[in-house]
Amino acid sequence: MNLTRRDLARLTALGLVARFVPSLSASTPATKKTGYCVIGLGRIAGHFMPAVRNTTTSLIAGLVSGHRDKAERIAAEYGVSPSSIYNYENFGDIARNPAIDAVYVALPNSMHAEYSIRAAKAAKHVLCEKPMSTSVADAEAMIAACKAARVKLMIAYRCHYEPTNLKAVQLIRQGALGQVQAIESTFGFNIAPGEWRLNKKLAGGGPLFDVGIYSLNACRYLTSEEPEHISANASIIDHDGRFNEVEENVSWTMKFPSGIVASCNTTYGANMEGFYRVHGSKGWLQVDSAFVYQGLRLRADFAGTQLDELNPARDPSHFQAEAEHFSNCIQNGLEPKSPGEEGLRDMRYITQIYRSAGIAI
Amino acid sequence: MNLTRRDLARLTALGLVARFVPSLSASTPATKKTGYCVIGLGRIAGHFMPAVRNTTTSLIAGLVSGHRDKAERIAAEYGVSPSSIYNYENFGDIARNPAIDAVYVALPNSMHAEYSIRAAKAAKHVLCEKPMSTSVADAEAMIAACKAARVKLMIAYRCHYEPTNLKAVQLIRQGALGQVQAIESTFGFNIAPGEWRLNKKLAGGGPLFDVGIYSLNACRYLTSEEPEHISANASIIDHDGRFNEVEENVSWTMKFPSGIVASCNTTYGANMEGFYRVHGSKGWLQVDSAFVYQGLRLRADFAGTQLDELNPARDPSHFQAEAEHFSNCIQNGLEPKSPGEEGLRDMRYITQIYRSAGIAI
Repeated sequence: MNLTRRDLARLTALGLVARFVPSLSASTPATKKTGYCVIGLGRIAGHFMPAVRNTTTSLIAGLVSGHRDKAERIAAEYGVSPSSIYNYENFGDIARNPAIDAVYVALPNSMHAEYSIRAAKAAKHVLCEKPMSTSVADAEAMIAACKAARVKLMIAYRCHYEPTNLKAVQLIRQGALGQVQAIESTFGFNIAPGEWRLNKKLAGGGPLFDVGIYSLNACRYLTSEEPEHISANASIIDHDGRFNEVEENVSWTMKFPSGIVASCNTTYGANMEGFYRVHGSKGWLQVDSAFVYQGLRLRADFAGTQLDELNPARDPSHFQAEAEHFSNCIQNGLEPKSPGEEGLRDMRYITQIYRSAGIAI
Repeated sequence: MNLTRRDLARLTALGLVARFVPSLSASTPATKKTGYCVIGLGRIAGHFMPAVRNTTTSLIAGLVSGHRDKAERIAAEYGVSPSSIYNYENFGDIARNPAIDAVYVALPNSMHAEYSIRAAKAAKHVLCEKPMSTSVADAEAMIAACKAARVKLMIAYRCHYEPTNLKAVQLIRQGALGQVQAIESTFGFNIAPGEWRLNKKLAGGGPLFDVGIYSLNACRYLTSEEPEHISANASIIDHDGRFNEVEENVSWTMKFPSGIVASCNTTYGANMEGFYRVHGSKGWLQVDSAFVYQGLRLRADFAGTQLDELNPARDPSHFQAEAEHFSNCIQNGLEPKSPGEEGLRDMRYITQIYRSAGIAI
């Protein structure tokens, strides 16, 4: 079968290439898959790694862990060469590993800056979990290090790549709700004792850093604006040993330049669903749950339209979309939609919220 | 038929008195029904008057209006003597009308103080709509006037007498949710141009005075606490002539002495359902709608219990419960559950919210 370039273009447009000319499709020279070195093999890495395996553009190429045994088991599962397993001391050796294009920083918050900067110095692109850091200064240092090393830096804001959240943003930008006036958002959970999240040195702070950041970030992407006035209250109610270092509850209000106002709550003392509701002159929309890994539901009522859409996508689809986006940026020289500067902004607002609530940061 | 006292007690206990011995039941010396003089025959009076007619303890005994024709039509409907119709000039004459025991002040907010005080001086009990006044000083003057005249003063907080809200309060007080951590509440609507509510002199302020007060008050009755830290943002987005005098949006956060935090939004720029959600260590409850005249729905999920209860009561049942409560207080020398001091507290918090948002009051 001889196919001209024009034949191929027509078949491609019809979506028939993969179906009828698989051999030809498969033989098209592929862009090299982006190889990720996963730093920290905890809970969230357990979502990221299978997500990467589901992509056609990315693979797991290295692991960093303090537990060699665990790393070897995972390496076998993901086809990672044992020579691409590192520990926290020899991590810098990734510089000499051409299979590794990027790192995924999945460590406790306070270690994000150090490992992102070390990765940049090893000339590897950086995909860093949120919150980006535990201080504005660290976030700035991360951005500077990646700029100096000419590597890309993306903060892993899953919701920026997740269809239900994107649809909410799109409806608002299209004016479906008319003029947006106000937003409520919440996210929290009843934390178990002993979690590293309760250690201020590791976590930077309490629920605001960990889950409240979703509400903060959502208010920003839903409005496409940056808050100009922020006020907050924080508290510790349960003196049961969990909250010796970080706050239990934070409630805050924000005002955006257009006049849109937002009120948010976060907690480590109650299971508080990830939620937002946006009120506009023509109607409202809400996503509930909005920030979990699956089961996102968008409801809306505006100008005679009612929506109730449960997103059937299953975990780890958010992580897959995120990895695909960053790999695409690396492979095609594009800027990530959620660069370091996006994480830095949240760090600045988090700092303002804590200051307003009288919490030292 | 000779009925002993014991027979009567047994029949009463069986609910059979009214059914089988109507003549005897009717002949029991009845407490005099409380006669209400309604001041202001606008929208909310149109809910209150049929509600009073539904009670066995209260009746409409007088009307105050600037429109004699309208007042006469309503007087005929409610069996009010034409001699018990007053205007705003001769209103003080109610002092000499023994049919009138109390007034129901249903005027624009800024007139609440004047007419409550005039009613007190006429030795009539006062049931005043919320917001109690447009300033703390007015609220204090109203309380002082009623004290001096030895008449009762109740602020018409419907939700204090409404079963769904009362059930939410009861569940929380019983500890069903465990330790409460955080509350969200909202209420607002997209206001039509030309309403008196948009006139600052009449209304005192915008949506916070009118509907945001429901969220403020709910956070207080749900926690049984008084807020100790309040911060707020306010804005005007729509420069379409409606918001030349009052704000369009208010968002605020409160912290209570126990550490419970609350975040609230109110607006005149969007239809924002009356809503609250309470998060506790053992679960959550929400009422949605919470503040409208009917269709209140309580949902909850705590410690293995799921609730989803739609209250079938129809308007004007809230007003009926409110009138029955106040009449009972008058007839039996009791203090209202929502006295002037309750309204004064909200006035103080409203003042704090406006000050925090940079709005002069």
